[in-house]
Amino acid sequence: MPTPASLINAALAAEVYKAQPEGLYEPIRYTLLGGGKRIRPALMLTAAAIYGAEPEQVMPAAIALETYHNHTLLHDDLMDRADVRHAKPTVWKRWDANTAILSGDTMLLLALRKLTECRCERWDELHRLFLDTFIEVCEGQQYDMNLERRTADDVSIGEYLEMIRLKTSVLVACAAKAGGLIAGAADDECDLLYAFAEKIGLAFQLQDDVLDVWGDPAVFGKANGGDIACGKKTYPLLTALSLAPSDERAELLRLLRPETDSEAARIRRVTAIYDRLGVRALCEEAVRAYYDEARALYDRLPLSEAAKRPLWLWAERLMGREK
Amino acid sequence: MPTPASLINAALAAEVYKAQPEGLYEPIRYTLLGGGKRIRPALMLTAAAIYGAEPEQVMPAAIALETYHNHTLLHDDLMDRADVRHAKPTVWKRWDANTAILSGDTMLLLALRKLTECRCERWDELHRLFLDTFIEVCEGQQYDMNLERRTADDVSIGEYLEMIRLKTSVLVACAAKAGGLIAGAADDECDLLYAFAEKIGLAFQLQDDVLDVWGDPAVFGKANGGDIACGKKTYPLLTALSLAPSDERAELLRLLRPETDSEAARIRRVTAIYDRLGVRALCEEAVRAYYDEARALYDRLPLSEAAKRPLWLWAERLMGREK
Repeated sequence: MPTPASLINAALAAEVYKAQPEGLYEPIRYTLLGGGKRIRPALMLTAAAIYGAEPEQVMPAAIALETYHNHTLLHDDLMDRADVRHAKPTVWKRWDANTAILSGDTMLLLALRKLTECRCERWDELHRLFLDTFIEVCEGQQYDMNLERRTADDVSIGEYLEMIRLKTSVLVACAAKAGGLIAGAADDECDLLYAFAEKIGLAFQLQDDVLDVWGDPAVFGKANGGDIACGKKTYPLLTALSLAPSDERAELLRLLRPETDSEAARIRRVTAIYDRLGVRALCEEAVRAYYDEARALYDRLPLSEAAKRPLWLWAERLMGREK
Repeated sequence: MPTPASLINAALAAEVYKAQPEGLYEPIRYTLLGGGKRIRPALMLTAAAIYGAEPEQVMPAAIALETYHNHTLLHDDLMDRADVRHAKPTVWKRWDANTAILSGDTMLLLALRKLTECRCERWDELHRLFLDTFIEVCEGQQYDMNLERRTADDVSIGEYLEMIRLKTSVLVACAAKAGGLIAGAADDECDLLYAFAEKIGLAFQLQDDVLDVWGDPAVFGKANGGDIACGKKTYPLLTALSLAPSDERAELLRLLRPETDSEAARIRRVTAIYDRLGVRALCEEAVRAYYDEARALYDRLPLSEAAKRPLWLWAERLMGREK
């Protein structure tokens, strides 16, 4: 049986996006066909499938969501001046900033146009969910940019969690609920799907923060300490700042600034402080708590374990916990 | 009776757009409440009114279109590095490029969310018209950026007309047709409204090119020759290049480059060439031809002259031809 990701990649490849002008559409194809784990559309297909919907019913909305997600990557990469995505130059790097803006805008419109192809009784609700979620994602990106401008000891863990919820989790939650809406699941089941995926999204994001510091580079795919090197506010950092005595707090803040020492020394020293304060266990506990919350919500879905199993398998795969 | 523009300004002012985060929503309020002639929503209200619709029925779609239009200004001003809009600093100037990108994205989403408030039997068609038009506007902006990179003698008048049609006219046309759709006009009447407004949009844009060179600065609001000074491809320039003998052609191309002479001298010299070639009359003829085409389409609208009169008055006002 084809995996959801392979179905999605085939559907994306079948999209034509080759209209004129070339300068507008080529970066869109480059972005959409350039890889990605297809986490969100795979979740949408899975959530719909456990309620009996066929992939074809869900595919327009799944492609719409993935196109939207790639629109955000295109604009975020420009705003963050990120050079590389999926091992390739980002659009603003390969072309220029204006191309990233305009092709990005077009992707958002193509996403919403794709959604109109979805035949579904609750289309209005689905559409409104998409728009409300997309606006929340913009708010999350703004909070993220606000956090960057502030000093780390001024940012609370609550603010950080709200930022990542808006910036990343609500879109995952939207994907799950959309699957339920399209498949005709009951309102409370759609809400459970949303809440389940929102928690998994938070667990995933915090786990990402943990892996950046302590993950196996061979598995994680990048060297440890990237977030420390660039002074990013992360769950480990904010946790450490909330626990550290004042001299260590001051040292952490100092070590966030690139001019203080070599990158390797800064990473080594910050990690040592984390380890002394027991930050890793606290972070893993937070990941676990969200994961368990998601499991409890999953357990409340009124379907047989056999019927809903694919949804939990999606979560385990996302978290790298397949057995 | 309140004018359409005053109704629209009141409706925009009543929109709440004051959610958090402030850094995202303040530039949106600044843009939406910062002025503008409200040409497009006024047209939508007018087109709907001649078919008997009340302003309240049309307002959500009218506000949506105006919000979308302002989204394009926000992103275009960044792409064009324009410093001033409506006598105020543009968003990227007053804040920064990232703010222009993200608040601009949010405005596009707010526009489409506003459209969902429109109660109308043909909502799906209205929505699809909006999305298709918005995608065309992106294509027009891309063609405009492509034209900027090319030398003027490589650009045909046909390409220029297609660029301005996509970049500006289709949105005006969309406004008129949307008014018809909301008011329940027949299909062929909606198509006439679209074609009428598309032609008026083209007439307006070409007239703008003419006024830049020969308009009364006291009426037009800017000094003559701004387009010449920045080497912009315009209808007068492309017309002149198509008519000029090869030595004058070469001189025109040379004069487009700012380093060749003082700005005043370049404007004076290019205008003299235009005048020698009779470019002004040819441009005014082109404006007149579109204006007459629009009038012929207006005449075909199967309503009494008294009933449809406000639509023509809108066109005359836009073109500055009120009697």
